[in-house]
Amino acid sequence: MRAAVIDGKAVAEELRADVRTEAQKLSELGWSPRLVSVSVGETAAAELYVRNQQKQAESAGVEFEARNYPAETSLEQLIGILQGLNHDPRVNGIIIQRPLPEHIPVKALQKAVHPLKDVEGMHPASIGNIVYNDLALGPCTAVAAVEILKTLPLQMEGLNVTVIGHSEIVGKPIAFLMMGLGATVTVCHHMTRSVAMHSRAADAVFVAVGKPGLVTGDMIKPGAAVIDIGINRVETPDGPRTVGDADFESCAEVAGWITPVPGGVGPVTVATLMKNAVLATRMQMDHYRDSYARTNV
Amino acid sequence: MRAAVIDGKAVAEELRADVRTEAQKLSELGWSPRLVSVSVGETAAAELYVRNQQKQAESAGVEFEARNYPAETSLEQLIGILQGLNHDPRVNGIIIQRPLPEHIPVKALQKAVHPLKDVEGMHPASIGNIVYNDLALGPCTAVAAVEILKTLPLQMEGLNVTVIGHSEIVGKPIAFLMMGLGATVTVCHHMTRSVAMHSRAADAVFVAVGKPGLVTGDMIKPGAAVIDIGINRVETPDGPRTVGDADFESCAEVAGWITPVPGGVGPVTVATLMKNAVLATRMQMDHYRDSYARTNV
Repeated sequence: MRAAVIDGKAVAEELRADVRTEAQKLSELGWSPRLVSVSVGETAAAELYVRNQQKQAESAGVEFEARNYPAETSLEQLIGILQGLNHDPRVNGIIIQRPLPEHIPVKALQKAVHPLKDVEGMHPASIGNIVYNDLALGPCTAVAAVEILKTLPLQMEGLNVTVIGHSEIVGKPIAFLMMGLGATVTVCHHMTRSVAMHSRAADAVFVAVGKPGLVTGDMIKPGAAVIDIGINRVETPDGPRTVGDADFESCAEVAGWITPVPGGVGPVTVATLMKNAVLATRMQMDHYRDSYARTNV
Repeated sequence: MRAAVIDGKAVAEELRADVRTEAQKLSELGWSPRLVSVSVGETAAAELYVRNQQKQAESAGVEFEARNYPAETSLEQLIGILQGLNHDPRVNGIIIQRPLPEHIPVKALQKAVHPLKDVEGMHPASIGNIVYNDLALGPCTAVAAVEILKTLPLQMEGLNVTVIGHSEIVGKPIAFLMMGLGATVTVCHHMTRSVAMHSRAADAVFVAVGKPGLVTGDMIKPGAAVIDIGINRVETPDGPRTVGDADFESCAEVAGWITPVPGGVGPVTVATLMKNAVLATRMQMDHYRDSYARTNV
């Protein structure tokens, strides 16, 4: 193996240290960052995820309240609840846990979160601000993947980047974040004629598709960075395992750097959620102070 | 010359015919589409542009009111004016004419236009909705360029597209719009190491940079489509001329299709503004009816 394996937990810990410092400052200003997690129905998978977020929040100095509503809650009721949270000054960020019951369209809830409290970076206005390159709150996974690439000794300006997967919350935001850093970006997806043609030309490959082993070593330029965002449960002779979208062994033979799954982008994503929490809190503080200043001119 | 020259005026006229029909329908429903153009200060160039929009609006069955405010109008006053227009049900679309006086940041005004009245498609939420691939009101120039490509006998799914220029209002939106159609998109810009490497691999090249002659025939794959969005005034021995970013003669030798400048993307852009006007009017009608229905349940 020639590739350096990127330690996502270490990157996340550094990020959390910054968040702790900022959270401390904000608390001293009377704006202690506070997240509210909204989940609907009984979902064991989500609960595990929420408990992890809660743990990370506490270690980052961010208050975290997990709310669970019964599966039969209506869309109108949930939007009412979100509007309440939007108007509550003691709530600085709102997380909508997936999966949701079938009668609840996730986008409708995401659009109901006030952009200033959109710590998941899912509101159309948040996404639009990425395009406008004034990144307020970005989608956590995309921001995390880019933050990891930025820790490598690569010049982002002019870097040839291929993004495999064009989802609204991961692939496309990564593309626009990288463009904002000056990279030349190609976005591939299931309709792309030859993904390998594009991935082999890239100095850095992001893959976020959800297909184990989709990217193999022969698709990677020697020395390139492979940032693997996939999280797939697979059955192996030794029982079930969690793997990414890249075939780790063959890619690690060719790549210069590679993120493992688990332990790569995942931990940094949760740390990014906490970073968004302190960013959102500061934006809200500034917003309230501006309005206050204006009304008193 | 081997390339077929795309007649933008013809594409625009077809688009306007659809707009006329839709505008007629809306008028019969009591929702006659109406645009308000806001310009600030004396700008001869803008006036010419506004008169052209007015002419196009009339021929498309869209009412058009041109407002001009004195150069010394403050940002706060202008935002107040926009908020008034946002709340006026007889106004369906707001156009902010550039250039603006130096003390007026254009983005601040664009963000002050209600997304439902954002016929120029400049609001962050409008841009975000393009990323989310539910195109409500898109930036006119980008939408126009893509509409022109769609008139060609090309399969958009899997098409290799290179966009040269990554501005927020043209290059990036073209990239998402093409991704939404299933194309594999590469975005190049001034930091790209080799634009030719990417443009030669493309079945369709969009160029929107503002550099006359930037794209030459040797950068184009034989038979590819060249959509030229540049508008540049240049001095020639025979006096000043308007040219695009592509060197028309050499590109036309190689390309399968090419848009002329003038007479290519330009006319379609104005027609797209009118299309956005009727789209916005229908969205507002549906929005008011929904709210009305809900309050009467």
